[in-house]
Parts: sequence; C-alpha cells; structure tokens
Amino acid sequence: VSTLQEIGEKAAVERLRPFLDPHPLLKTGAGDDCAVTAASETFDFVFTTDPLTEGVHFHSGTPPAKIGHKAAARVLSDMAAMGAEPLFLLFNLSAPKTLEMKAAELLYAAAAALCRRFGAAIIGGDLAQGPVLELHGFGVGRVPCGTALLRSGAQPGDQLYVTGPLGGSLSSGRHLDFLPRIEVGRTLRESGKVSAMMDLSDGLAADLPRLCEASGAGAVLHAGRIPLNPGCTLENALHDGEDFELLFTATKLDPMAIDFPVYEIGTVTGKAGCLELITPDGQRSSLKKGGFEHFRHRNR
Amino acid sequence: VSTLQEIGEKAAVERLRPFLDPHPLLKTGAGDDCAVTAASETFDFVFTTDPLTEGVHFHSGTPPAKIGHKAAARVLSDMAAMGAEPLFLLFNLSAPKTLEMKAAELLYAAAAALCRRFGAAIIGGDLAQGPVLELHGFGVGRVPCGTALLRSGAQPGDQLYVTGPLGGSLSSGRHLDFLPRIEVGRTLRESGKVSAMMDLSDGLAADLPRLCEASGAGAVLHAGRIPLNPGCTLENALHDGEDFELLFTATKLDPMAIDFPVYEIGTVTGKAGCLELITPDGQRSSLKKGGFEHFRHRNR
Repeated sequence: VSTLQEIGEKAAVERLRPFLDPHPLLKTGAGDDCAVTAASETFDFVFTTDPLTEGVHFHSGTPPAKIGHKAAARVLSDMAAMGAEPLFLLFNLSAPKTLEMKAAELLYAAAAALCRRFGAAIIGGDLAQGPVLELHGFGVGRVPCGTALLRSGAQPGDQLYVTGPLGGSLSSGRHLDFLPRIEVGRTLRESGKVSAMMDLSDGLAADLPRLCEASGAGAVLHAGRIPLNPGCTLENALHDGEDFELLFTATKLDPMAIDFPVYEIGTVTGKAGCLELITPDGQRSSLKKGGFEHFRHRNR
Repeated sequence: VSTLQEIGEKAAVERLRPFLDPHPLLKTGAGDDCAVTAASETFDFVFTTDPLTEGVHFHSGTPPAKIGHKAAARVLSDMAAMGAEPLFLLFNLSAPKTLEMKAAELLYAAAAALCRRFGAAIIGGDLAQGPVLELHGFGVGRVPCGTALLRSGAQPGDQLYVTGPLGGSLSSGRHLDFLPRIEVGRTLRESGKVSAMMDLSDGLAADLPRLCEASGAGAVLHAGRIPLNPGCTLENALHDGEDFELLFTATKLDPMAIDFPVYEIGTVTGKAGCLELITPDGQRSSLKKGGFEHFRHRNR
C-alpha cells in the first residue's frame, strides 16, 4: 500500500490521468495550465481550477484580503499562461464556523477587485464548513479558436524567455500580492511568434522540464541571463517557486516589439529530456530537477 | 464581530453576493443552481461548483468510490436542475499525505464512471495537500440559447412537482449513491411546459421557499401527495435534505407525456412568501421553513 506522501504529487497526478476522458468538444490533452474546449465558431473556452489551503499555500494569520487576492491571481495566472482573456471565476470557500464574516467579505472583495481589473467577474461559488480555510477557484476564459498557447509547441532552435525576475516569492511575500500576467500573455499570443507557454508556479527547475517533456524537447539555460529578484541567487530562481511569471518559447521574437519586458534565458534543443545549465564562465552541467511538490514538503 | 456560526450560511451567502459582478456574457443573476452565460449563437453554457468535505458531507471511513460518486453526482445534479446537458467536470482533491493512492484512484474512477454515464468527461483538476479529504467539483454544461430553467419563473396557478420520493437520504446512505436526474431534467426542459426548476439539496422546507422567493410567489403544499421514501414521515421529506430530486413548477403538464415519474404535490400562488401546508384531513398551517444550513449544524 502506497500513500500520497510516498508517491509524491507528480506521480500521483500521472496515476489519476487515466480518469480524464476524451470528449468531442475537448481540444487538448491533460497537462496544460487550462483545458481548451470548443465553444463557438469564434472562440475556444479554457477552464482551470486552483486550490488555496491554509497551512499549505498560506500561513494561518495571513490577512484575508491577501488570501482572496492570491486565490484569484493563481486562477488568472493559469489563463494568462494560455494567452486567454479571463471571463468568469467561481469560488468555493470552506471555512471553520469561527471565521469572522468580515474576513470572508475582505477575502471576496480582494478576489473580485483583481478579477475586475482584468475584465473578469466572479459569478458564483459555494460556502461550506471545513476544518481550515480553503478557497477553490474555478476559472473560465476564452481565446480565438485554435490560438491557445500550449506547453507542447516548443521547437528546437526556439529561444526560451521569462517575463520577469525570479526567486524569493515566498520569503518576500510576493506570492500573496503578485499580478497575473494577463496582458503580456495576450500580447504574446497575438504576436504569433510564441510556440509554447506556461506559468512558473513550482520553480524554473520543476516547470521547464514539464514544458520540455510536453514538447519532446530539451533546453540549454544560460544561468547568467536568468533575471533575479533582489537578494536572490540562481538557486532561488530555480527552486523557490510561486513566481507566476510566464515561461515561453518563441522564434524570431523582437523583444522591442513587445510592450512588456521579456528576458531571453536559453534555447530549446532537440535532445528530448536533456536539460543543461551553462554558467557565466562557460561550465556546462545537468539541470537538477526540483521545486515544490505537494505531499513531499513539510509546508505548502 | 460576528462569526459564520452566528450568521449562518444563508445570511453569509447574502453578504457575499455583492462581490458577484455583472458581465456582458452573463445571462442570469446569482442564486440559481448554475450560472448561465452566452457561449455561441446556438448554446448557452452553465457553470456550477460543489464542495464535498470529510466530516461535513460524508463521514470519515466512507468508501472512496462512494465519495467520488457523490462529488460528481452533486455537480451533475446542479446541471440537471437547469435542464442542461453536462459536458465537463474538473475536480480539486485536497487530501492528507497519508491518503492511500489506491483510495484516490477509486475516488476518481467512480466520479469518471458517473460522468461517462451522462456523456460528460472529467477534463482536469488539481491535487494538493490538506488536513482532511475535500473534493471540489466544477461543472460545465450547455443548453440551447435561452432555454435554461431558472428558479425565478414560477407563476401563480402553476402546479408544483417533484421527480421522486423524499426523505431519509442520509440515514439510508442514498446520499452516497443517488443518480442525478439528468435525463428527466432535460426532458422537462424540452417539454416547454416547465416554468421553474431546482434540485432538492437541503430539504423541501428549505428549498421550496427559495424557489418561491426567486419567483416572487407563494405555494400551497398538499402533505398527503408528497411521495415518501420507505420508513419516512412528512417531517423527513421536509427537513432531511440531500434528496437530489428535482422540484419544478409547470402549467398544463401531462405527466403521462413525460417518460419519468413526476408527483404533483401542490400549487403556486400569488401570495409572495406565503407557504402553506394542507394535511390530508384539510387542516391548513404555515410551512415551517428549515432544513440543513452550514455553520449552524453539528454535522454536514
């Protein structure tokens, strides 16, 4: 008998994948930040879910407005990763009966405010009793038919980019007030130059292998080009997680033609599964995979 | 300072309602079993969420397959209540790290099997650590444009119906293996005779007032006509909850023209908020509102 702790999140997700079924309206397989489905002759709809749990994704005592903001921001970030326009969010709130009503209101107000900023609306949800505070967000967005950016499109020779500096999200508290990259995601989709995209939630060293695996590709990372947040080292950028910047691959992208900062950090190769790191002094090493995994870490 | 326990679920939901926003694609206000949104020139999409929490919606030790079945069935039941065709479900699973992988698989297998039965597919979700087992289901369905059945359409003079016997769902274990009324919901929508519909989740005495309030109507219930499950009394039918039969109002419905059993249990009146119960011996009394409410009950 194996427990989730013994198996770890990644392998557990793989073992649950057979229960995801095909559907005539479903346009993608599992594993992207959102599922993409046909909705009309003009638009595909994208769907995503994100849990946010006290003691796992935030500490007890975190201000309710920050919890609500983070819950909405995580869902919106999944839509940004597809280049989608967010439309609707629904939230399930599980809470102990001792939760103050005012805290629930502050939490929803912050989530609603962030949604409004991007033209999206909270349109439903449910309220139920539970042992700790848990927010489960469900997001609906749309893209013009066939234009959603997936993890699987990276081609050898593409450049590898991130949309902002990495590392230190948890220690700085940035994970509680980050802004999802909705506009830059959409701009990148509309550029027509992007071959694959995802958001960085578990750290570059955990997420880049996922993009490469989905694309049947490898990558070479230039350590000296990875933008770092203040006080952060390469290790932080690779392993901290919760950056919620976008990681994408593109060919012939003119960074000056994009109204947002993007950082070229490496190259996609044809060597499937081979992830290399080149230090500024030219030394090559294998990228040690890692980053956050549920059920294996004490916190989060 | 007021807690959720002091306020109760119903009032708490009212206080969170201001954070639900309008949206150009949203076709309904809050309060129905699903939110209805424009998707194409042919179909509206409906969206719903449902939490299922250990110690609240099921006891610890409940077989995983029953938990998975119930989680999917509750989401599907919300879609049945709109007369919708279910398309997609996404599930967030929160679980302690000591959960056996096999239990997670049994849980998803049961949910997937129920979805398949109605032509729907699980297409995504997330897995995270949490203190107890929680399943949060997100459902997407569709109806031909403008045909979703809402709670707000009941008219004075309409008859009031339920789709099956009520009471004893928790004590019998029926709440763990009920079948959502997808086909009958769809048949009722297609009949064109139904003015309002919802599913019975908190008990007739809690849910009928909601339908009446949404419709600005009242109702007279004939106690002797309410179909009862074996061993159940009128009290069970009114207050137990979790029946997951459909409650609907219709005019000139020919029950013989519907391929499913339906039970006429009363009449809609123009006296807004006035809910009366007539016993078989002709005595009239006010219907005592009640039924399950989160944060106010010890269990569930």
